[in-house]
Amino acid sequence: MRIFLDCIPCFVRQALDSARLATDDERIHEQVVREVLRLAADLDMSQSPPAIGQQIHRLIRKLIDNNDPYRELKQRFNRLALRLCAELEERVRTSEDPLETAVRLAIAGNIIDLGVKTSIEESDVARTIRDCLTADFDNQQIEEFRNAVSQAGKILYLADNAGEIVFDRLLIEQMPTERITLAVKGGPVINDATIEDAEFAGLTEMVEVIDNGSDVPGTILETCSQAFRERFEDADLIIAKGQGNYETLSDADKDIFFILKAKCPVIAGDLGCEVGEMILQRSNSRNGVVDSVKEAE
Amino acid sequence: MRIFLDCIPCFVRQALDSARLATDDERIHEQVVREVLRLAADLDMSQSPPAIGQQIHRLIRKLIDNNDPYRELKQRFNRLALRLCAELEERVRTSEDPLETAVRLAIAGNIIDLGVKTSIEESDVARTIRDCLTADFDNQQIEEFRNAVSQAGKILYLADNAGEIVFDRLLIEQMPTERITLAVKGGPVINDATIEDAEFAGLTEMVEVIDNGSDVPGTILETCSQAFRERFEDADLIIAKGQGNYETLSDADKDIFFILKAKCPVIAGDLGCEVGEMILQRSNSRNGVVDSVKEAE
Repeated sequence: MRIFLDCIPCFVRQALDSARLATDDERIHEQVVREVLRLAADLDMSQSPPAIGQQIHRLIRKLIDNNDPYRELKQRFNRLALRLCAELEERVRTSEDPLETAVRLAIAGNIIDLGVKTSIEESDVARTIRDCLTADFDNQQIEEFRNAVSQAGKILYLADNAGEIVFDRLLIEQMPTERITLAVKGGPVINDATIEDAEFAGLTEMVEVIDNGSDVPGTILETCSQAFRERFEDADLIIAKGQGNYETLSDADKDIFFILKAKCPVIAGDLGCEVGEMILQRSNSRNGVVDSVKEAE
Repeated sequence: MRIFLDCIPCFVRQALDSARLATDDERIHEQVVREVLRLAADLDMSQSPPAIGQQIHRLIRKLIDNNDPYRELKQRFNRLALRLCAELEERVRTSEDPLETAVRLAIAGNIIDLGVKTSIEESDVARTIRDCLTADFDNQQIEEFRNAVSQAGKILYLADNAGEIVFDRLLIEQMPTERITLAVKGGPVINDATIEDAEFAGLTEMVEVIDNGSDVPGTILETCSQAFRERFEDADLIIAKGQGNYETLSDADKDIFFILKAKCPVIAGDLGCEVGEMILQRSNSRNGVVDSVKEAE
């Protein structure tokens, strides 16, 4: 998915939010905003939004001289998610369709996306969980997902954010863990999950965990390590969590299930859904065009 | 009031909205956004927000080769306001305190601000009228306004937007019209009222109407005509409508009543009120510092 003009004011706002989160120094806030404006003025609009996200957050980390400004927030959301998931794990196990319940909760966890909105409260997460457990959901997509998972030999699960990754564990537990590899980011960017978050969530004891060698808040293969690219190529099925992975892989020629909450109007427009909708959507692996849920009905 | 960093993503979004309103040509939308990004990157942050508004809208008008892209919308809102005000005029006359009711409606009219939000529906205006007629309002400010109006020899009323100007007429009718001069913008900018809107609203038959010689969406005296500046200097009381006039005159050394609806978080922050609040607030004419309603209580 390419950058839309509507993304640009949002990039500037995101950069300002991130700069404020990282430091109280207003001169740096201003410097970040001015640099991002310059960067955006000459932007190659054929890139995907996370490509500029990578540049913006590299710039912020450099200007504030802090390699991981979201570290504390990532830990806070990991702890919150772990507290919430202790009870939710039981709920998944005892539900009528554990896989569906786990998919719903994995989508709920995608609310913990500090790229879209810097201030997320515990009450937002709790409300999203309630909403996702009861909202309408396309049953056909769940069945297709169930079949794809049962048939795939090698499954590559692309994690999204810290905190959210604890919710991903609920879903991974409902799948054949011996066939799953979980991939996290190669370095800190926004609140995206890295290896230490996977460890905290207990996922390193459950599945093979690798990092993708990249600091893009999504998955741009050209920026990933050779080892990751081989695993991506080799996988029979990709499960891609979150907006950033959708933005960067929606045109990929691969069998991918995108699992996310559509949180911005541009992505909702691209998906043909409403803002706030739960998305479990399969790419068309033959030509890289994503089938919309609505078209599939 | 100076530009805050939070204004910058908003400028970019406004520019894109305006460009889309003015033309369907996506190349021009992109050109406008890129130019505005360049302009913002080197922005003098000590200016007031309408100073960059002027530059952005000059740029848009030049790029789309149309001197008044909001003309049709201005006419639409003038007609809508005239339809609504026919009934509201009676309501003012029969109300317990006609001046207060007219101030409330003048504030309601300030919702017709296409700089803040490009898509305003008739239902938004109707709802704002209902809300403004019933919301809490500081009685002390009304009394101070009543006294100031009765004592001032020369009153200069700075109009804000087309459509809104019809609501201003309801207020002007409750004041000594022979002592009032109404000032509109010297040329088109966003949906700000110009002389033709004052004529349409029937104001040219009611009070003296002048233009300020400027195309700033606010009142920056240095950009106004000498004739207007003399009238401004000479007035005993200024009534300044809308956010743009607040942003540009909040530090002016003059006796000013600001009448507006606080529609953006930056202005609400500067005023010390909530977004959406009705504002009737007097400047401190001695040192140019605005008394907050709350401080005055």
